[in-house]
Amino acid sequence: MSIKEIKIFSPATIANISCGFDVLGLALEAVGDEMVIRKTSEKGIKITKLTGQDLPTETLQNVAGVAGLALLAESNYDGGFEIEIYKKIKAGSGIGSSAASAAGAVWAMNELLDRPFSNLQLVKFAMEGERLASGVAHADNVAPALFGGFTLVRSYSPLDIIKVPTPPELYATVIHPQIEVKTSDSRRILKTNISLEDGIKQWGNVGGLIAGLYTNDYELIGRSLVDHIVEPIRSILIPGFDKVKEDALDAGALGCGISGSGPSIFALSKGEEIARSVASAMKKVYQKIGVDYDVHVSKINTEGIKII
Amino acid sequence: MSIKEIKIFSPATIANISCGFDVLGLALEAVGDEMVIRKTSEKGIKITKLTGQDLPTETLQNVAGVAGLALLAESNYDGGFEIEIYKKIKAGSGIGSSAASAAGAVWAMNELLDRPFSNLQLVKFAMEGERLASGVAHADNVAPALFGGFTLVRSYSPLDIIKVPTPPELYATVIHPQIEVKTSDSRRILKTNISLEDGIKQWGNVGGLIAGLYTNDYELIGRSLVDHIVEPIRSILIPGFDKVKEDALDAGALGCGISGSGPSIFALSKGEEIARSVASAMKKVYQKIGVDYDVHVSKINTEGIKII
Repeated sequence: MSIKEIKIFSPATIANISCGFDVLGLALEAVGDEMVIRKTSEKGIKITKLTGQDLPTETLQNVAGVAGLALLAESNYDGGFEIEIYKKIKAGSGIGSSAASAAGAVWAMNELLDRPFSNLQLVKFAMEGERLASGVAHADNVAPALFGGFTLVRSYSPLDIIKVPTPPELYATVIHPQIEVKTSDSRRILKTNISLEDGIKQWGNVGGLIAGLYTNDYELIGRSLVDHIVEPIRSILIPGFDKVKEDALDAGALGCGISGSGPSIFALSKGEEIARSVASAMKKVYQKIGVDYDVHVSKINTEGIKII
Repeated sequence: MSIKEIKIFSPATIANISCGFDVLGLALEAVGDEMVIRKTSEKGIKITKLTGQDLPTETLQNVAGVAGLALLAESNYDGGFEIEIYKKIKAGSGIGSSAASAAGAVWAMNELLDRPFSNLQLVKFAMEGERLASGVAHADNVAPALFGGFTLVRSYSPLDIIKVPTPPELYATVIHPQIEVKTSDSRRILKTNISLEDGIKQWGNVGGLIAGLYTNDYELIGRSLVDHIVEPIRSILIPGFDKVKEDALDAGALGCGISGSGPSIFALSKGEEIARSVASAMKKVYQKIGVDYDVHVSKINTEGIKII
């Protein structure tokens, strides 16, 4: 008899990673949602429980529900699923809250159906959740949640995702200042055109970051964590950004930037000790400004979503 | 007694490699200039011989002369050099003719002075030759000539060059239709702005190409050899480009694009046999149009400039 129910961990993710707007992402180990997914004889998807955040549970209004329906539409399974979501990732924090729910749901369903779908297909289903959450079916959070580690969305059409190796001593620090920045707003302020000159710098850095990840060259990774295009615009929406970045780099971070569309700010460091010093430095900035925050220090999660 | 004179081979190079405008380049094994460089007690640089092409031999008008002077200005050597240049690469062909002369000169001088300078410093000197040739001190041809293999210019300021591994079965095919396209013209027609959307596609492909080179993933290399930004504009200057590309891909090439600023067209293939079929397919197009051409099939030169 096949398994009817599983409980999973679905990780928070950092999209863009400075130079890789819309194409790069990584998964975290220390932060993520828990979900229980259960097969039912009744068709369709039901969100039977949702704790930790105030989010809609109506299937068509819930990212896990919509992603799950996208999977069901391509499956020959004639039953349905119930989903319980225990949110640990705050919605709107910029570390892939919607992606964790959407990717977690379809990954678990695929397990319960004995894996009829590839990871790439699961990304496509989960992207439908992202479309509901932000109006854009982006893959840069759902891809690392599903594949683990660092992922590159080489192309959206056709969808082509490459898993890139994770240097073993790499740690992420993420601070979430408790201010609201809507993904849709932070996309709207972007310019639709960029200078060719900035573009050249950006693809040079993407190349450098990928090379650094393949060779465990932490210095090269650090030098490549530069964003000439999006950060100068989006960082305006995040109070204290420049100071947080400056102090994170002073504390030894390899690089620092906006996580996804913000307001969370991430840094990458070599080793846990530096990552913790970076966390302290970041906290102090928001203590001084008087903005509440959450802070996480985490290894990179090379596995992605997993059964717990 | 130290060596007074060396003879070297300085390779032709392919810059841009489709997705990596201004940042990527590779060196060829089958095509390149020969040069003799000789220490003299007289200060300065003299071009004592130049065969194969009609190019200026006055030091300040010659790319090897200018690059050599840039090296001398930073050296404590109190003599000078004579340079003989045996051009095999046609000037203006788009496979790094000026870069081969400039890089070859400074590489050989460095050898004769017992290597006081790093490869990175040599790139900077050679870039002065490129400035003379095209008005822009670009590094995407001189870097692969000096480092060998594939190179990424991650950043120009500060200059940061990464040598990327070469998959062993990779071959290049290059066809040079004998029409004139000036580097300065082919730069002038480029737009100074690009859409963010095209930028995202481009840096996704740069990431994919670098990943493919590190993992010997020929299919990924092929999928990444796409240029959304420069090729659509520059290819207008190259008669027959679309047909050459189409037939090269039909013949089995992994990818095909403009070499540097053209008019040469390059393709990369897995294995020499396919690279030769690609050459035949390319030739046929120009035979039909009635344009003269040179064609080269070459391994990637992983060594760079060498003593012969």
